Amino acid sequence: MPTAEVLSQGDEIVTGQTVDSNAAWLAERLTDLGFTLVRHVGVGDRMPDLVGAFRTIDERADLCVCTGGLGPTDDDLTTAAVAEAFGCPVRLDEEALAQLRARYDRFGRKMAPVNERQAWLPEGCVRLDNDWGTAPGFAVRGSRALFACLPGVPREMRKMFDARVLPLLHEHFSLQPDQLVTLRCVGVGESDLQQALEGWEPANVTVGFRTKLPENHLKLRFSTSAEADHVMAVVEQALDRVGQWVFSVEGAPRPIHGWNTEGGDLATVVGRRLVARQHTLALAESCTGGRISAACTSMPGASAWFLEGLVTYSNAAKVRLLGVPEAVLAEHGAVSEAVARAMAAGVRERSGATWGVSVTGIAGPSGGSEHKPVGTVHLGLVGPSTEAHLALRLPGDRHRVQELSVAAALNLLRQHLA
Amino acid sequence: MPTAEVLSQGDEIVTGQTVDSNAAWLAERLTDLGFTLVRHVGVGDRMPDLVGAFRTIDERADLCVCTGGLGPTDDDLTTAAVAEAFGCPVRLDEEALAQLRARYDRFGRKMAPVNERQAWLPEGCVRLDNDWGTAPGFAVRGSRALFACLPGVPREMRKMFDARVLPLLHEHFSLQPDQLVTLRCVGVGESDLQQALEGWEPANVTVGFRTKLPENHLKLRFSTSAEADHVMAVVEQALDRVGQWVFSVEGAPRPIHGWNTEGGDLATVVGRRLVARQHTLALAESCTGGRISAACTSMPGASAWFLEGLVTYSNAAKVRLLGVPEAVLAEHGAVSEAVARAMAAGVRERSGATWGVSVTGIAGPSGGSEHKPVGTVHLGLVGPSTEAHLALRLPGDRHRVQELSVAAALNLLRQHLA
Repeated sequence: MPTAEVLSQGDEIVTGQTVDSNAAWLAERLTDLGFTLVRHVGVGDRMPDLVGAFRTIDERADLCVCTGGLGPTDDDLTTAAVAEAFGCPVRLDEEALAQLRARYDRFGRKMAPVNERQAWLPEGCVRLDNDWGTAPGFAVRGSRALFACLPGVPREMRKMFDARVLPLLHEHFSLQPDQLVTLRCVGVGESDLQQALEGWEPANVTVGFRTKLPENHLKLRFSTSAEADHVMAVVEQALDRVGQWVFSVEGAPRPIHGWNTEGGDLATVVGRRLVARQHTLALAESCTGGRISAACTSMPGASAWFLEGLVTYSNAAKVRLLGVPEAVLAEHGAVSEAVARAMAAGVRERSGATWGVSVTGIAGPSGGSEHKPVGTVHLGLVGPSTEAHLALRLPGDRHRVQELSVAAALNLLRQHLA
Repeated sequence: MPTAEVLSQGDEIVTGQTVDSNAAWLAERLTDLGFTLVRHVGVGDRMPDLVGAFRTIDERADLCVCTGGLGPTDDDLTTAAVAEAFGCPVRLDEEALAQLRARYDRFGRKMAPVNERQAWLPEGCVRLDNDWGTAPGFAVRGSRALFACLPGVPREMRKMFDARVLPLLHEHFSLQPDQLVTLRCVGVGESDLQQALEGWEPANVTVGFRTKLPENHLKLRFSTSAEADHVMAVVEQALDRVGQWVFSVEGAPRPIHGWNTEGGDLATVVGRRLVARQHTLALAESCTGGRISAACTSMPGASAWFLEGLVTYSNAAKVRLLGVPEAVLAEHGAVSEAVARAMAAGVRERSGATWGVSVTGIAGPSGGSEHKPVGTVHLGLVGPSTEAHLALRLPGDRHRVQELSVAAALNLLRQHLA
């Protein structure tokens, strides 16, 4: 497999002002394409460091994707560093200049003379047009490595990678990307996933795990030549063992009956199912403090199925807005099965939604007791012909308890919509 | 100034499964301590790459902080790589072994034989005790650089850096950290900040900017020897120019009357002010979908001042829960000054809170019109003797409009609490 490195340029990276998310994004894409990622390098805006990095990488890798340093200011040095490292003069690219001018015209702004700098590119390079920002990128060959230089703005960088760099990679390398199927799980830890898979040793697949709070992913990696029948058989075996926690199967060669294979996070999957049934949702949140509503409304078009979310933090609000009886609060306490059920029923009835879902719990760090320690959470759900309750003991700090509660509530609803 | 590099180890870093937040955290801390950060390097779990990285870094830097590769499994290679790179044999550290055993005993678990590996350290190293996890770290000297090797788990790494590495650094280096004062701003872009500071050229300070959506930070960097009087004078000058957007001043040598110098994000600052006045808050959110409630309830103890947050996404919910007159909705539309004011008044009156704050807007991508394009947002506020309204045209995609609206709403309340 060809080897690749990722080079990130900029003082803001090297001094830690910015977390280098570009490097991880690129590394994951390149790995999936079939490159062996060997190294990440981050350097500041200093000419000798940059030139040195280009030359060293050229000695040991087949590909290097670089980000940053293509702007119009004096500390944008990538083009000059490439020119010095590989002895190719920098020249004005008329087409790049015309594109820059056209872009400024389109936004009715005048291009400052300094921006013309961005149209000077290393001689003999392949220009990578930037339809999403101003700075064009370029690709050049060293003695061994192919270098693709992209802007550091993540949005522009990602679009340009997909539209401009991918075709180049297929041209220059004979890539044999693995086939990757991801089973996205919630409500389970990695150790329980591993336990459920113990003794399962399918042939011709590499099994991996990845935690992405609140999700855990089971990754099944097949060779590029694996047959669809084999892949599907292995995926079905995995679902037999861990399916109870899976809300989405991504990358499978065929749809799987009864499973979401369209991708998306948990709220997206729930939203799609509600839309398909023309159902609506109302929420009553306490310890999650609006986070379930926020997850639902992060999607465009949520107003088709999301009616309202009541963050009833105080007991008075639970009584007034949801009709939870004061006697029930007094007898069971706000964090209890009875109150969770009453909250879900109350918000459903008053809003007229098809489904009412509630959460009440103790997110911490204080407020816990011996019988109800921090992490105690009760979920309630009321639907057209169902009522359900789930009691949880969640681990971790306040943030984690809140995030895991959001996922558990959405997952409870997803299961009832299955 | 001494130079430093950061080395991150692990296949999960180099293949992009994990974003390397350790590198940025360490780089920022080391920069603040007075090191010149030269480079970040990330390598996978391969012995030759690791040994090569240690040797190369030793040739060019005075300090290297390494993370990862200290676990008990076969792909944890840091100790062996250091031993090979610098020719120091690995030996069992009895004290480290005793600490490991004690830790397992404390949690009532049996230590697996494989964990004993973690007590084998390079001969002549300084052991860095890990009170927050299992793997101890260590520090060794190469021919030039001091290497400090820490676990990759961010929580353990950060605690160990502060408790174990910091003292070592002060021992080995004569550090002259800059004095850094940060003015945290909201509701303003970087270009407007720069404009407001145009022509201001104070002596003996470096002025920098950092965008951290939804905040913009103005950073004033002084030398270690700058006098407190000088620093305070420069900070006051900056506040004269940009104070209208500043909600927090961090790192100043003295408190500044009328300004929050205790740190914290916008919701924390608002919460502190409400607690100090024994005031309470109720929210009516539409386009922000619960995000203001989530920001408020991310703080422990929010129940002292946060009563409730109503995510009234549908018009029916605005009428039923907030008492917004149907005629007002029909005449002005849901996204309007009249509705924002009615929402704030309604939630305040019905909840009995001291303050009612509301947001209604168009987050996009669809739903905009010529008169009310995507990004149109109205904020309402009603307090004991105040009513206010703010109309905004926010840039960016759905996520950005939502995040900027949250900040604008909290900031409006903060200004009225000043």
